[in-house]
Amino acid sequence: MSERIIVNDVGPRDGLQNQSRILSPEERIRLVEALVTAGLRHIEVGSFVSPKAVPAMAGADRVVAGLPDLENMTYTVLIPNMKGYELATAAGARSVSMVLYGSETMAQKNANMSKQQAEDVTADILARAKQDDIRVIATIAVAFECPFEGPVAPAEVRRIADKFMQLGSDEVAIADTIGAANPRQAREMMDMLVSDHDANRLSCHFHDTRAMGVANVFAAAESGIRKFDASIGGLGGCPFAPGASGNVATEDVVMMLEQMGFDTGIDMAGLLQAADLANELTGTAPGGRATTWLKRNIEQAS
Amino acid sequence: MSERIIVNDVGPRDGLQNQSRILSPEERIRLVEALVTAGLRHIEVGSFVSPKAVPAMAGADRVVAGLPDLENMTYTVLIPNMKGYELATAAGARSVSMVLYGSETMAQKNANMSKQQAEDVTADILARAKQDDIRVIATIAVAFECPFEGPVAPAEVRRIADKFMQLGSDEVAIADTIGAANPRQAREMMDMLVSDHDANRLSCHFHDTRAMGVANVFAAAESGIRKFDASIGGLGGCPFAPGASGNVATEDVVMMLEQMGFDTGIDMAGLLQAADLANELTGTAPGGRATTWLKRNIEQAS
Repeated sequence: MSERIIVNDVGPRDGLQNQSRILSPEERIRLVEALVTAGLRHIEVGSFVSPKAVPAMAGADRVVAGLPDLENMTYTVLIPNMKGYELATAAGARSVSMVLYGSETMAQKNANMSKQQAEDVTADILARAKQDDIRVIATIAVAFECPFEGPVAPAEVRRIADKFMQLGSDEVAIADTIGAANPRQAREMMDMLVSDHDANRLSCHFHDTRAMGVANVFAAAESGIRKFDASIGGLGGCPFAPGASGNVATEDVVMMLEQMGFDTGIDMAGLLQAADLANELTGTAPGGRATTWLKRNIEQAS
Repeated sequence: MSERIIVNDVGPRDGLQNQSRILSPEERIRLVEALVTAGLRHIEVGSFVSPKAVPAMAGADRVVAGLPDLENMTYTVLIPNMKGYELATAAGARSVSMVLYGSETMAQKNANMSKQQAEDVTADILARAKQDDIRVIATIAVAFECPFEGPVAPAEVRRIADKFMQLGSDEVAIADTIGAANPRQAREMMDMLVSDHDANRLSCHFHDTRAMGVANVFAAAESGIRKFDASIGGLGGCPFAPGASGNVATEDVVMMLEQMGFDTGIDMAGLLQAADLANELTGTAPGGRATTWLKRNIEQAS
């Protein structure tokens, strides 16, 4: 039997949050449903941030309330602070992701907190979540490079990962937020963290800004990582700069991992339908690089 | 000092041969000149095949005669047989590439020869080239998968590589002609061949059809390969299916290798200018995936 690898689609959150076209909660639920139909079992469905700051994520409570109610689904929501935690869990969320930062400036710019404050809040949320039986992902943003401060020291990422593993985070996600990592860096970082911790509590989040996203997934998979974020249709690229900043496309990641012999449990034809829906809804989900080949291949097989 | 890695631009040959817009020899020379200006020192400049079969390669002798005459340049031409060898060397070519095949059907379809005939002809050419002091690259096409026969056994690629290394080929190129390899396969294949032979006599040629081209370059570089084919601007994609079948883009490969710490000797701003020229001349060189980021990065730095 093939080894299982988890692909977590973050399209409904990371993919949508900067889009010019804002989707209604009902449209976002349709997108999640298409992903569930394709076999995705881990989906990041929204963010409990201020609707004033991120209008595209308004009504996250309605999204959570309307999700397909399957037992083996892990629907995660992003939360910015304890208030977000309370709103998210009140809405019914059972898995939350809190963002930590590799650099001080990014913490200030993105969350209006210091790095230390973000760590303190996350520690508080973790303690609370243990009582509530809520799953927590501690996401280390700009884990390789910060757009303001430049390269981030791997030792700093190691410190944060150590701390939140010890505090009992269910998962620590290593996020290359701006798509700056090269696969040698991805390999070295994940080799280090896998030697420190249980690989099943680690995950990776790569963007394809510099065309290295898929290579980074490969490198981290070889290091032993078995969970990856990706975004349906490559959703998340800046509409004014095609291909510039989106997450690595789910189609590309699933196809590569399957062809390498892993089992993702995901149906490619269903995934392509979900990608078409994402593009229909947003106009900015161009599809993965492999899409042309995948569509031709599926036609020939049918 | 950084370790040197060679990028061989095959755009003027592999990139142009299937384009609907046919470039004159003078236009092809302009493209080569732009690549030389960017720092490329290995370029595949044309093919001495029948102009009836491949009109885009007509006048290859005029291309060779008009190349910038730099001492440290390796200009290679593709030849289909002994007649092609004679035409190429008469025109002044000093480095030729002969194609061998991982599968019988591809040999028949592409060269109207059996696999065995292609090997016999290449052996004859190698013997002749030794006398003439001509460099020979033995290129093993469809080294991972054949579009007609499916997967190619690595043992068969190993047999052909062994044979032509022993016959004194200066280089054996492993070509994923249809862009089917995944990076695990690329790694296993190149680990095997590097254990058999001097890595400096091996090279790799990847297409990006399934979005794995850049990951395959990374995997093979980790196996010890230090020479890669790539195509300026991703030139070579089918004009009716963007991104479908081109070589991996030179910009993406050079950027990744440089960011991994290798020295390619190539200037990125010059490379982007060559890519713009390729697109101006053909309309089908969309640029690499990293191009948007690269252009913004160069603007900010200047």
